[in-house]
This record gives sequence, C-alpha cells and structure tokens, in this order.
Amino acid sequence: MSLFQVLLVAGTHGNEINAPWIFEQWSRDAAFVKTFGVNVETIVGNPKALDQRTRYLDRDLNRSFRFDLLNSVLNSDYEVNRAREILSTYKEGSKPCQMVLDFHSTTSNMGSSLVIYGRRPADLAFASLMQFRLGLPIYLHEGDSHQKGFLVEQWPLGLVVEIGPVPQNLLNAKIVKQTTLVLESCLEVLAKVLAGEEEYPDSITVHRHVKNIDFPRDINGRPVAYIHEELQGRDWMPINDGSPIFSYGSGHIDRYTCEEIFYPVFVNEAAYSEKNIAMSLTKRESWKIAENWKLELRNITSI
Amino acid sequence: MSLFQVLLVAGTHGNEINAPWIFEQWSRDAAFVKTFGVNVETIVGNPKALDQRTRYLDRDLNRSFRFDLLNSVLNSDYEVNRAREILSTYKEGSKPCQMVLDFHSTTSNMGSSLVIYGRRPADLAFASLMQFRLGLPIYLHEGDSHQKGFLVEQWPLGLVVEIGPVPQNLLNAKIVKQTTLVLESCLEVLAKVLAGEEEYPDSITVHRHVKNIDFPRDINGRPVAYIHEELQGRDWMPINDGSPIFSYGSGHIDRYTCEEIFYPVFVNEAAYSEKNIAMSLTKRESWKIAENWKLELRNITSI
Repeated sequence: MSLFQVLLVAGTHGNEINAPWIFEQWSRDAAFVKTFGVNVETIVGNPKALDQRTRYLDRDLNRSFRFDLLNSVLNSDYEVNRAREILSTYKEGSKPCQMVLDFHSTTSNMGSSLVIYGRRPADLAFASLMQFRLGLPIYLHEGDSHQKGFLVEQWPLGLVVEIGPVPQNLLNAKIVKQTTLVLESCLEVLAKVLAGEEEYPDSITVHRHVKNIDFPRDINGRPVAYIHEELQGRDWMPINDGSPIFSYGSGHIDRYTCEEIFYPVFVNEAAYSEKNIAMSLTKRESWKIAENWKLELRNITSI
Repeated sequence: MSLFQVLLVAGTHGNEINAPWIFEQWSRDAAFVKTFGVNVETIVGNPKALDQRTRYLDRDLNRSFRFDLLNSVLNSDYEVNRAREILSTYKEGSKPCQMVLDFHSTTSNMGSSLVIYGRRPADLAFASLMQFRLGLPIYLHEGDSHQKGFLVEQWPLGLVVEIGPVPQNLLNAKIVKQTTLVLESCLEVLAKVLAGEEEYPDSITVHRHVKNIDFPRDINGRPVAYIHEELQGRDWMPINDGSPIFSYGSGHIDRYTCEEIFYPVFVNEAAYSEKNIAMSLTKRESWKIAENWKLELRNITSI
C-alpha cells in the first residue's frame, strides 16, 4: 500500500458546517465515507470558529498561510497560530501529507466545483481527472493580489472544493450528499493515480480569474444596490454586453458594458461582501492536457 | 389625517439584512416605499448586531421583551437595554405608536408570511385583511412556553413579517422585492382601515402552533441527522404518517409517525438550531372572522 497521505480539511471557515458534520459522523462510523484504500488524515481547519458558528475569530484562516504572517513573531492572531500548528503537524511534522483537499460551502450557486490556485502542473492534472470523472467546473484563481495565503498552496498538491448554494451555519441534505460524492470521488480518482491506472481526458475547461467586481457603495461603504435577479444564481453562465448586474431597487439598474464575454463565479457570496467582492469574472478556456502535468502528479504521488 | 402611528422595525436580528437595507435606501429617497399617507416611524431593532453582522450580542432581542428581564435592575444585557430604550421612546415616550410591524427573514422556505402571537383580536383582524389582500399564510404562535418576550406583543397591535428563503447576511433581489411588497401592502391596508374602508373576508386560515421538533443530537448536543431532502423547503405543506423527516446520511431515516396531519413551518431555520428547533408543527385551521376582532381593530385605530 502506498505511503501517500492526503490531508482532508473541513471547517476552514467555521460557518461552513456541512463538511465538518460529515467528518464528525465519519469519525464514529468508518463506513460513512469510502476511502478506496487511500490514507487520509482529517482535521477541522478552524475548530474555535466552528464552535462559535462564525467564519473566523481574528482573521480569515484561508488567507493566513502567508510567509510574512507565519514568520512574524509579533503576530499572535488565533488563525495565524492555527495555520502554524497545521503546517507543523501535517506539512513536515509527525503526520506529513503530500496532498490537501479543503472542503468549503458557498451561499452563491457554485454547484459542486473545484478551485485551483496558480497553474501548478500537478493541481491541473488532478483537477482534469476530477473534471473527467464528475464534470465539475474549475475556477482558476490567479493574478488577484488582494487574495493571498490560501491553505492548499502550502502542499505540493492541493485543491479547494466549493459546494453551494447553502446558507452559512445550515446543514442541508443536498449539500451533504454533494460534498460526500465529491470527497469520495476525489479519493477514488486518487486511488487510481496511486495504482498507475488514471485516465486523462484530452483537455480541461478552466474558468480563469480576470477581475473582481464590487457592489456600488455609499460613502460609509454600505452596498446601495443588490445583484440583479437575472444574474442571481447564474454562476458559471456567460454575461454579455448589456446584461443587468446590479439593481438599486428604485428601478435604476447597472448594466454590464464590455464586448468580451465573461463567466461570473461567487455571485453574491455572503462571505465576500467584506472583501469587496460582489462577484468574480472569469474567462472560460479549454486547455490541452500537458505531459508535464501528468509527470508532476506522478512524481508527487510516487513515494 | 389620522394621528395613528406605526412603528416599522427592521434588523431586530442583525444578520437579517434585507429589510434594514430597504429602510436605509428609504431614508435617502422618500419615494422608495409608498406609505399611502400612513404616519410611520422606522427603526433598526438591533443596530449593534447589524453592524457586527450577527443575530445578537448578548441575547436574542426578540425574546427580550419579557416583564422579568425589562424590570430586572441587575440585567444589563445590550438587548435588554435596547428593548427598554425602544419601549421608552415608541410605546409611551416621545413618539408613541399604536402598532408595530417587525420585518424578518428566514433561511427556511417561509415565502412571504405573517406571524401573530396569541389570539389578540386586533392582530387577527389585521392579519385577515392582509391574507385577503395578498394570500399570505399566517403562523399563530401560542402555547410555546420556551419562546416568550417578542417585540410586537408590547404594542396593542403588532405583527411579524417573515420572508425567505435567504441566507443570513445576504442581500437578495427576490427578498428585497417581496419585503417591499408586503411592507407597502400593510400600509395600504392600514390606510383603508384608517379611512374606514377595509373589506374583510369571511374567514381566515391560520397555522396554529402545536409543538417544536428538535434534531436528533449526540451527547454533546450536536445534530446527528439533517432535515430529509423530501422535507427540506416544504414549509406550509402537510406531512403525513410515514413521511421521512430526518436523514442520518448513512441510509438511516427517521419517519414521522402520527395519524394527525401537521403543517411544518421554520423547517431548517439556521437561527433556530440553537433553540433546539428543527421545525415547528402546526394545525391548519379555518376560522370565521369575528365581530369583536373588527371592533378591536377599529378601537385601536380610532385615535
């Protein structure tokens, strides 16, 4: 059996409770999630925030894996300490893992989807295998200087799973099922990779991050408009020149003006209002699977 | 013009942000909400909680209007003080109101609905007028000894408006529109009452509270099952003997066993998990409009 270890993380944000609930049932009943023989470690990313039903205490844990924060002796934020603790155990410590899967939920209508950061060849290889298996859309997060320090970037291979829509702090039948399916499928695909039996598609479709769009706001920073109802829930769907994007309630509407077609993601994500993101716009691109992606995944998984 | 004053409250729970957003736009643009000549006062119930994007700071404001709490010199919870402040201004103080409408949102699929507390004749009269106007379902909350101290009970005439589903802390196009429609319709109906031109239906349909159902929980109090997908979102719809209500994720299901037909409300309301309520069961009843309801509403509105 392979020595390869996967770190599975739930509750990186304490108000995204479906994946932590699955992990808790799983801890009592080993049959609750099928592992296909893959070695897994499971942790709750932010246990204090989960207890307090809040996204975080001092700062967003999933923006805290930054070199400057981790190495600042002056920083004692709960989440920065928790990031150090997770790294010291699961990166190079007593339970070293080579891969991490981080399970989130969204209030936006992301469906079951994957997020990858940058263009790391092994991430692209694994994401393409998962897209081939389940048809998941993939958001490629890159070139967003305001958003840094994601957990999964700390391991050689790491993806985020985003599933929605579901309110924060709510256990939901459909989200539990979707999360379990994606989790089990990731492990099944990984088992194939570890056995050298993976099968690649010819290409991968990615939604490449282009820019964030904020709400129109008043001088106090409060939104003066909401996502137009024709855009609400339409994550992954194209928006064209002239499409309504914001409504002011009074009848006034902001329309999208651009000749390029973009695909919005994280449309009206409750957690992102504080980050000044009403939605992110992406370009949909189809890329050939490259040989070096496969090689890199092979290298990382051959231990 | 009548001296009758209505107190309109939004953000009694700080993470129910659609009604407060409407009030804020309205404060800048008087035409944002039609008042039909009715005198209104608008307040945010729990401004600190709204700022902090949380339901409450120390305790639920909408369970804090209790005689024992209000009169306890030892109690200095933020919400108890806020309750005293609201009462001292809008009940008998400088801006006395005779009626209150309190606007909430739900994560459960309540649609647009009204809640009345006890069987106060004037509340029943006004609710029946609103049901006649918009067809709103009405939840009659009574006989629930664990849930006391609601804001609206402090005024001679007072109803709660509940609109969902919407995640907490999320502005949503549909919810903004529904809230505005119910708010304007309440004022329009009230204007008719003040003009002596109200038109009653023959009967009112109420969903009378019978009991609360909690989640199955482990010894630490954590839910071990979720609302079954066949029940999720089915507020106001009958559940029959044998209907699935909870799923444990492992395949095990709890079924409803009772020969009576009940109508669940607040199914999977995120805010109620801490109150040990997974749903409330009601009986659907049709009542004749009583003459004393009309008289009582007439008395209260004739000032």
